[in-house]
Amino acid sequence: MSEPMDYASAGVDIDLEGSAVASLIGALSKSVRAPGTPGAPVDLPGGFGGLIEFGDNLLALATDGVGSKLQIATALEQWGGVGIDCMAMNVNDLLCVGAEPIAFVDYVAVPKPDPAIHAALGASLAEACRLARVTLAGGETASLPGIVTELDLSGTALGWLPKGQAITGEYLKEGDVLIGLPASGIHSNGYSLVRKIIEHAGLAYTDTAPFDAEHPARSLMRWTEGAPTLGEILLNPTRIYCDPVVDLLNAAREGETFSISDIHGICHITGGGLSNLLRLHPSLGWDIHTPLPVLPEFAWLQTAGGVETREMYRTFNMGMGMVVAVAAEHAETILSWLQERMDGVAIVGHVDNQGHRVTHAIEGVEFSHY
Amino acid sequence: MSEPMDYASAGVDIDLEGSAVASLIGALSKSVRAPGTPGAPVDLPGGFGGLIEFGDNLLALATDGVGSKLQIATALEQWGGVGIDCMAMNVNDLLCVGAEPIAFVDYVAVPKPDPAIHAALGASLAEACRLARVTLAGGETASLPGIVTELDLSGTALGWLPKGQAITGEYLKEGDVLIGLPASGIHSNGYSLVRKIIEHAGLAYTDTAPFDAEHPARSLMRWTEGAPTLGEILLNPTRIYCDPVVDLLNAAREGETFSISDIHGICHITGGGLSNLLRLHPSLGWDIHTPLPVLPEFAWLQTAGGVETREMYRTFNMGMGMVVAVAAEHAETILSWLQERMDGVAIVGHVDNQGHRVTHAIEGVEFSHY
Repeated sequence: MSEPMDYASAGVDIDLEGSAVASLIGALSKSVRAPGTPGAPVDLPGGFGGLIEFGDNLLALATDGVGSKLQIATALEQWGGVGIDCMAMNVNDLLCVGAEPIAFVDYVAVPKPDPAIHAALGASLAEACRLARVTLAGGETASLPGIVTELDLSGTALGWLPKGQAITGEYLKEGDVLIGLPASGIHSNGYSLVRKIIEHAGLAYTDTAPFDAEHPARSLMRWTEGAPTLGEILLNPTRIYCDPVVDLLNAAREGETFSISDIHGICHITGGGLSNLLRLHPSLGWDIHTPLPVLPEFAWLQTAGGVETREMYRTFNMGMGMVVAVAAEHAETILSWLQERMDGVAIVGHVDNQGHRVTHAIEGVEFSHY
Repeated sequence: MSEPMDYASAGVDIDLEGSAVASLIGALSKSVRAPGTPGAPVDLPGGFGGLIEFGDNLLALATDGVGSKLQIATALEQWGGVGIDCMAMNVNDLLCVGAEPIAFVDYVAVPKPDPAIHAALGASLAEACRLARVTLAGGETASLPGIVTELDLSGTALGWLPKGQAITGEYLKEGDVLIGLPASGIHSNGYSLVRKIIEHAGLAYTDTAPFDAEHPARSLMRWTEGAPTLGEILLNPTRIYCDPVVDLLNAAREGETFSISDIHGICHITGGGLSNLLRLHPSLGWDIHTPLPVLPEFAWLQTAGGVETREMYRTFNMGMGMVVAVAAEHAETILSWLQERMDGVAIVGHVDNQGHRVTHAIEGVEFSHY
């Protein structure tokens, strides 16, 4: 291969996206809702979830879609996991501010309503609600033949937390311990690059995976028998971290052995990979010296696409979907607590004070911009 | 013209949409959130907004998109109103359950990010937040070249109300007075039919409107000088009814001259037109004997498309975007209160008990199914 593949060459222009979003945000004005009234905005760095005041509590909203992962689901007519992806992308963002997700609404856009697709989405959303422990409080199905050529699925999650207990990153400090939570697969980011690599490799999604997909910290959602297909691995639903993270937050708030003030930061590793950590604090650094095992699909994608290692870690979760930064003195207690509830949780690194950057056990995997 | 146009012939199969949505809903299970806990669902007929428990209050979510009206905005590269449409479709639904909208998130899907579109959307959403008095608590811009061919815009609104004060329709009774609130135009429903009629008429959206667009109860958002163009009329933003309806709800809850128990039902007239009224009660009827003036664009569309009158009232708002059903003994007080705050508000009819149907001053405009 002459040119290594990267996310930009797969058709995603991150700079253009950034300037488009900046244009939208720049046109917005201050909220009309006065401080102290229901709905008044609460400023928080990182921006994983939008927080608003509500009496003695805060409410949080997160909105996101499944993105181009849907194109693989549609190509295979397998929509059983995409409701879980849609839920996960939203509720995992809410967890990052310390909110407990409580409700969800979905938005489905299709060229033409199709009861088979909708039944599959309904089943997938029902399972997602169970995993995230939320109420499906509504939804919209739009038929837009002039706008969409195939299924688009997005959603919005609502969460809450007691006022004064948001996880803001303000207590992060040098020496804090980073606990990594394993991913179930590629989750819902980087699929433009994934699709380009599969195409380049001349493989079909129905082909048996050309690698061993076994990994102790995840199971696959299967619809074929025998060895897993590429499609089954690529469509494995995004992990929903409500269990155990909501329980961790509640245990911390009850404060028997550790308290909410020991949980200094929570990061959902989405598009941008490890560089998402930089969103949690304006000056501290993040040293991932003992990363979680890389899931086999990432190793294969890197080789098949000739993707540079740094680009892999800037595009994909590489096996770690969430990071919890905790006070060093309670790290072992919190680690054990999490390990009892989820396989594959481990200490992956520390917060340092040597500049606003992410470093990694692999030399060259370093980020100083989100 | 040989065949009169209708909504179905414009490519919208309402039955298919209904069965697709039924498939999705049928696959859903009961909420995992127990009664009395934050997020537990609250059953309510009508289904305008999804209500959940939250301590001494209820929270409501509504999610909806702008639909094919966006195709006209994109054709004209005029996105200044679509943020208002998106907001209106959601917050107006929240008002129907008696909720005050407090926050909003937008979801933008584009084939490729375009700072010009995003700046226009940002300005439009900022104005929408001002009109609806909500905080923009987040948003997502997705680049989906394989799924969308042009802009899709949807959003989710969050509202709240004190527990026990939801407008459920349970107090509706024969003799209740229907107060109509004027529409600003076509709002955001029926655009598949609108676009088909314009095409059939051989007109361009940039053509001067072939009718007098003046109407005392609305103003137009303009971007040309001289006589209004068809595009300016068709894209006029959906009216946001927060002012005066939130204030009406608050005045009623304070209860100086009328109380919240006098407001028996609120109906957002969306797709389905007047048949939306049937969603408010399982058995009562709705007699619209003194309708609001029809906006000139509806009269022209009907003639140009050869659309049957009943079909017009089942597809469009016909000049009335919201209906408030109130106790007869306080109807004049509430009417005056609303008239002081919005031009064109009037008593349009009464609730009757002669079957579950909508009747209208125009014979044949009658609906017994939503």
